[in-house]
Amino acid sequence: MTKPMFETVALIGIGLIGSSLARVIRAKGLAGQICIATRSEPTLNTARELDLGDSYSSSNIEAVANADLVIVSVPVGASEAVARDIGPYLKPGAIVTDVGSTKASVVRQMQPHIPSHAHFIPGHPIAGTEQSGPTAGFAELFEGRWCILTPPAGTDAEAVTRLTGFWEACGSTVEQMDPDHHDLVLAIVSHLPHIIAYNIVGTADDLEAVTQSEVIKYSASGFRDFTRLAASDPVMWRDVCLHNKDAILEMLARFSEDLSSLQRAIRWGDGDKLFELFTRTRGVRRSIVEAGQDTEAPNFGRNTAKPDTPGAAE
Amino acid sequence: MTKPMFETVALIGIGLIGSSLARVIRAKGLAGQICIATRSEPTLNTARELDLGDSYSSSNIEAVANADLVIVSVPVGASEAVARDIGPYLKPGAIVTDVGSTKASVVRQMQPHIPSHAHFIPGHPIAGTEQSGPTAGFAELFEGRWCILTPPAGTDAEAVTRLTGFWEACGSTVEQMDPDHHDLVLAIVSHLPHIIAYNIVGTADDLEAVTQSEVIKYSASGFRDFTRLAASDPVMWRDVCLHNKDAILEMLARFSEDLSSLQRAIRWGDGDKLFELFTRTRGVRRSIVEAGQDTEAPNFGRNTAKPDTPGAAE
Repeated sequence: MTKPMFETVALIGIGLIGSSLARVIRAKGLAGQICIATRSEPTLNTARELDLGDSYSSSNIEAVANADLVIVSVPVGASEAVARDIGPYLKPGAIVTDVGSTKASVVRQMQPHIPSHAHFIPGHPIAGTEQSGPTAGFAELFEGRWCILTPPAGTDAEAVTRLTGFWEACGSTVEQMDPDHHDLVLAIVSHLPHIIAYNIVGTADDLEAVTQSEVIKYSASGFRDFTRLAASDPVMWRDVCLHNKDAILEMLARFSEDLSSLQRAIRWGDGDKLFELFTRTRGVRRSIVEAGQDTEAPNFGRNTAKPDTPGAAE
Repeated sequence: MTKPMFETVALIGIGLIGSSLARVIRAKGLAGQICIATRSEPTLNTARELDLGDSYSSSNIEAVANADLVIVSVPVGASEAVARDIGPYLKPGAIVTDVGSTKASVVRQMQPHIPSHAHFIPGHPIAGTEQSGPTAGFAELFEGRWCILTPPAGTDAEAVTRLTGFWEACGSTVEQMDPDHHDLVLAIVSHLPHIIAYNIVGTADDLEAVTQSEVIKYSASGFRDFTRLAASDPVMWRDVCLHNKDAILEMLARFSEDLSSLQRAIRWGDGDKLFELFTRTRGVRRSIVEAGQDTEAPNFGRNTAKPDTPGAAE
């Protein structure tokens, strides 16, 4: 058997991402030992029942004591508390990374607490589903996906190489980026889409003239697509909104401006303008499919829903 | 062999919906003869190559001459021209229906041209994909889906029963609705989602600080979901916007109002408000899955994209 990449990996937080990491680390033998920590007692018990690691603790300190690699997978708003907790107990040479969806805020929150004898390399695997918790994870989550690292200037190059190798072993391709640029990119490709999805589902939920049962019944005509993103973890997304505020507000302003212009075209019957936009956007879809970032099958290739009793929604 | 439901069915327009109808009519033997008409010569040739019908014509008049059932599947903006065309040539007792995504406008456009010896029953199958044209259709498109009919007051009950039976034979469940209410329901479950999707893809396409290649590369983090709807047929959606203006503007106003409020919560760091909305919307997804209107598999059950060379997007 080949030597594992890391003797001991500590996973702080064991939700969708943390538990997927536990599974792929185990499946590919990437660590000698997996130490799991989470504040939630029920989650810790679930992780134990799923046999995700080698040790389980509600203390972050206990989990990181011998760790060569510490991966923090918590809502970004909890990053500072975790860093403050573990900072004094990190082993010399330990690599500390995270998986948060915002990066500048995570750097601000964590960096001051990481001692200089450890290597702090923030990260963000671009992978996930709308589900959450330790039961939702799976070993293949990171396969064929991108992982962005945002190492601060002066980070030990060997540590970056080791962490890059780890993500590659998980099946991902690693890119490096500046934290602020990461936050701008993610604001448009991820944060704005989630916010818009949450918003439209909220709007539909509030209508008086159209019943909730009608919304659900006829949702296959477009609306259902949005409900998937709007089913994502509320704590995670609350924190993303609070911790990438500037970039999100910038993207929201542009979106709203464009929407006002589109609304005006509808009001004044400007068919040419509508046709121009609706044609231009097709190309973007084509590029995404060509880049292997989505399936080309119609309706995402999902099974045609065939309710036994189509009136079930009523 | 059982007698077909209709001796002759005329299909005016042979895109995604028209060609799916041709396929299911043929597969289930619902008509003795399928007469196809479309103005576009290339589309007519494709239909012929695909062997979708028994006769092909660029003249709507020719197609409806002997038809017992006429199904108009054209962009809603073309409804009046078709009705004016075929009105004088409809056989006594013929049923004329359509599949348009707006109903009040179709009634206004078509009804005046349909002679009293024919039965005009507008319809809308809630089924489709983001693809278009005669090659995109398939016989199972209507299976397990809803079809809404909006028969005007005083419509012959037997004709409604016959058309209902036809859609049921295609695999759908039929509901009746008032045209104005249909337009309001569809404005929220279908039209607004498409407009929002087109808009956000347009916004992303216009950025300077984030490159197009970055948008495509990292689209799996949320954005790609929107690009599917935004790849829908531009002519169809231009016409929907122009022909369901009032209901769409009403829904857009509500959406924008809610978005402003959400934006304010982000700006002022109101985490409780964000958490409340993000929690409430989860229930809507659950109901849609329970109603059999979408798959419960994570990420719509689509295959995890595994690009051979993940850098292909660059």
